[in-house]
Amino acid sequence: MDQRLHFITFATSDLNRARAFYKDGLGWDPLMDVPGEIIFFQVAPGLVLGLFDAEKFDQDLNSTTTTAGVSGVTLSHNVGSAAEVSSTIESLVSAGGTVLKPAQAGAFGGIFHGHVKDPNGIIWEIAHNPGWKIDEDGTVVFG
Amino acid sequence: MDQRLHFITFATSDLNRARAFYKDGLGWDPLMDVPGEIIFFQVAPGLVLGLFDAEKFDQDLNSTTTTAGVSGVTLSHNVGSAAEVSSTIESLVSAGGTVLKPAQAGAFGGIFHGHVKDPNGIIWEIAHNPGWKIDEDGTVVFG
Repeated sequence: MDQRLHFITFATSDLNRARAFYKDGLGWDPLMDVPGEIIFFQVAPGLVLGLFDAEKFDQDLNSTTTTAGVSGVTLSHNVGSAAEVSSTIESLVSAGGTVLKPAQAGAFGGIFHGHVKDPNGIIWEIAHNPGWKIDEDGTVVFG
Repeated sequence: MDQRLHFITFATSDLNRARAFYKDGLGWDPLMDVPGEIIFFQVAPGLVLGLFDAEKFDQDLNSTTTTAGVSGVTLSHNVGSAAEVSSTIESLVSAGGTVLKPAQAGAFGGIFHGHVKDPNGIIWEIAHNPGWKIDEDGTVVFG
């Protein structure tokens, strides 16, 4: 199996709030939006974030038990400076997010970061990591 | 906030089993491996999958409650044919995964897919989707 991720999909209890947050609040452009079903956003080259109605998420897995929300996962968005961490967190809050961990120095890696929950419980880390970069060809480099 | 994901990080209760699955079982090449802490794999241009010791995951979030495992999220890996869905699922099982939904026609989108749990509960969907492609510039196209 190739070392490659194509989709990341979350069980989303309120798709309307997801749309309000990502599309109207953050100004993101959906790749596809099927009301009541799923909203897709491209979030990296060849990679799509899917917000999938929670009931249909369970059905798709043939699951007989209801998913107890999103847990055990964070998404990270890197920015160019500590100041930008704070301003991006403010943008997320303005769009309807909830601060989980205010912007601060991280415990390791020399990063400065904070965490915000989206309206469906998906946690975003906003980080400035001076030792991290993406090469021209898409290769990630840790400094 | 740019429409961009840089890291996806999971609370991982058994990092050694994660390493055995992804590195030894699937032959993936870690970007960084800090035993007892975190293992990183690049999984798309500019995108890193992090498997983070579950206790440290909670600490990093300043969380006072223990994460109750991974839930409400799936990762998808697309392949070129229905036969490849089945053979990839076999590879995941050989590496230590557990079949959650055997390979079959999906409910919509014309896809053929199946789902496998990794040893820490992360669900991978393996899918063949004839209407999906990635353009040269990394743009995802739904047919």
